[in-house]
Amino acid sequence: MLNIEQANQVVLGRMMGARPILRTVARAADVIPAMGERMLLHAGPPITWERASGPLRGAIVGACIFEGWAADASAAQALVTAGEVTLAPCHHHAAVGPMAGVTSPSMKVYVVENVTHGNKAFSNLNEGYGKVLRYGAYSDDVLARLRWMNDTMAPLLADALALSEEGLDIRALLAESLHMGDEGHNRNKAGSILYTTRLAPLIARAAPDAETAAAVLKFLGDNALSVLNPVMAACKAMADAGHGVEGSTIMTTMARNGTDLGIRISGLGDRWFTGPAGQPDGLYFPGFTAADANRDIGDSTITETAGIGAFAMAAAPAIVTFISGTPQDAMNATLEMYEITAAEHTAFTIPALGFRGTPTGVDIRKVVELGITPRINTGIAHREAGVGQVGAGLTRPPLSVFEDALLAYAERYLEG
Amino acid sequence: MLNIEQANQVVLGRMMGARPILRTVARAADVIPAMGERMLLHAGPPITWERASGPLRGAIVGACIFEGWAADASAAQALVTAGEVTLAPCHHHAAVGPMAGVTSPSMKVYVVENVTHGNKAFSNLNEGYGKVLRYGAYSDDVLARLRWMNDTMAPLLADALALSEEGLDIRALLAESLHMGDEGHNRNKAGSILYTTRLAPLIARAAPDAETAAAVLKFLGDNALSVLNPVMAACKAMADAGHGVEGSTIMTTMARNGTDLGIRISGLGDRWFTGPAGQPDGLYFPGFTAADANRDIGDSTITETAGIGAFAMAAAPAIVTFISGTPQDAMNATLEMYEITAAEHTAFTIPALGFRGTPTGVDIRKVVELGITPRINTGIAHREAGVGQVGAGLTRPPLSVFEDALLAYAERYLEG
Repeated sequence: MLNIEQANQVVLGRMMGARPILRTVARAADVIPAMGERMLLHAGPPITWERASGPLRGAIVGACIFEGWAADASAAQALVTAGEVTLAPCHHHAAVGPMAGVTSPSMKVYVVENVTHGNKAFSNLNEGYGKVLRYGAYSDDVLARLRWMNDTMAPLLADALALSEEGLDIRALLAESLHMGDEGHNRNKAGSILYTTRLAPLIARAAPDAETAAAVLKFLGDNALSVLNPVMAACKAMADAGHGVEGSTIMTTMARNGTDLGIRISGLGDRWFTGPAGQPDGLYFPGFTAADANRDIGDSTITETAGIGAFAMAAAPAIVTFISGTPQDAMNATLEMYEITAAEHTAFTIPALGFRGTPTGVDIRKVVELGITPRINTGIAHREAGVGQVGAGLTRPPLSVFEDALLAYAERYLEG
Repeated sequence: MLNIEQANQVVLGRMMGARPILRTVARAADVIPAMGERMLLHAGPPITWERASGPLRGAIVGACIFEGWAADASAAQALVTAGEVTLAPCHHHAAVGPMAGVTSPSMKVYVVENVTHGNKAFSNLNEGYGKVLRYGAYSDDVLARLRWMNDTMAPLLADALALSEEGLDIRALLAESLHMGDEGHNRNKAGSILYTTRLAPLIARAAPDAETAAAVLKFLGDNALSVLNPVMAACKAMADAGHGVEGSTIMTTMARNGTDLGIRISGLGDRWFTGPAGQPDGLYFPGFTAADANRDIGDSTITETAGIGAFAMAAAPAIVTFISGTPQDAMNATLEMYEITAAEHTAFTIPALGFRGTPTGVDIRKVVELGITPRINTGIAHREAGVGQVGAGLTRPPLSVFEDALLAYAERYLEG
């Protein structure tokens, strides 16, 4: 007899028992499974150029120029539409990327290993705020920064991490940062300086010269999102550890490509359930309004999938200055998420709630029964290619994707 | 006619308008006003060797050995009791030191400048947790660490800070750390890594070699109290900016020497009002109990004097794992302090209270009227010289010192 609760407890035990360690930084196509030399990974469920939104197209163009495959936007578009460059979801390759999430073969990526279960996960490097590739910008300065990150910072990070036998325990770092006002998705201020501080002595020792050490330490330390990408890879490693458990109704993927939002369920294999990505509500940078906003985009909802991000907002009252709302709204966001989750995290706790574990493991049955969808903290991209970030805010996935998943679950497990 | 409220608003305007910038690290007797070459500064109000507690005696002995004035405890005691080494409060020399606060002429100190009003303040370097001079330990390893700090770390910090034209704005750093779960006295985890992160590129550039850079970055980054001493100097600079305003009833000093607690009032000049230092309630390290605890000690209550520390505990719910109590107790501590203070800080805000300013500027009239004394977060020293820290907790000053101060105020301003 099918015991759904038991299956879900297996999933949660694996997700929360996973211990993701940052090991190194390496060239994407050298380490990401089945990543071809003419492949671009992107955020969210599968999508074609024709259906891709402005920021995803911009990032694809930028990646083609970065790789030297194309000189401009129309040449890049021609390559992709002719099938000479393949598009594939990061999630199909054990990877995740924030916003557009575009990762090309030569880009350096973080390599995170879940030492409990042995699986690995990958994420690209964080470029900082504003006009950046992941928001669809691809001007010369954007590409120059990417090249510096790839050719100067990434090798130094790899050399620095090589000096650490134990690697960097990202779950422990996250647990600490949740006690320091982060929620791990849109607010990673504490995590990023913890990350910089832990790496600093290793960077000083591994650097080819003092100026390179100083430049990398400044780049990491000034960017309040430095740790977002290792955190996302860690969350991916945790979520993947819980994926594929027969009979489970726990969500193990939630991701958006700027057009569609898709989820996957532990007990339903690799099938995506998709619907329209949301239009975020939030605060806009000076000069921009909601009319400029693209639909929600990015794999960063892997954080909510793993029990942090919007689910841990009660730990991060100061985030409301960035995404709108009041500290009480932040508290309420976490409290609401307990309604649709199957566990309280054993490693991630919230001081302001008496050290209660974060709500973890979305159960699609509860979502559909209560009509409460997961909350998402997110950055907001301009709808046109080439512009970049215009704000940050909150959104939710459509209820329909959970209804579709539950229907598929019923078809597979409960009928016939 | 005497307008007390107006005088107090002048004090608060000066305290909150002060902008303390960390400028450099220098030899104590070279920069601290009127510090003699045979003088030891200590925490709290004036005290003699005869009345000094174990941890203060231990720190005095350690400092005499550090300076090469004495080979052991009895030789050090002989020098001090013979008057060949002078004891003086840090507070008499624009300085502050945590716990015993003992600062000798050759020790390197932080130099903080209040750029709004031009006054300077000083504090020694932080040694980390456990067996350290400031808790009265003076074994060879304690002295060896002090020498490394003085001879290797301090010159590098000075060189690093010299690369920064604007210096390090400690008020801005504190404001940020209060949004990251610190209260600035007993919890400085976020502030210390912010501090390390800001200095890291400068340290990398200024270091004589990579190993020295790495060692200093590790020492600063691993010590969750690294920034306490610059923070204390910053609070001293802020409090001193408000001192000496005719007619004011605002407390501008609160400090303990391990025997007595003393306060000073803006409108009452340099006169101390003293009473017995409290016995902290708190959590003890394994192997120690309340029977091992010394009376409360240290100048670190300059943080509460300036509107942070226990007064900002609502910002730091995770601190209860270290000092005992619940997150609600931490919230209540802050709420209670609004009862006895004259302002809400314009730079220091608490996200969980809807970004309300911290309670700032203790008014001795309110303390006496309500019978509510200021709250203090504190470390707990072993009562015997040479042991070190045994725990952390909470205490309060005796009400009598506020009654005495108010009586003196009445004598001076309201009678005759």
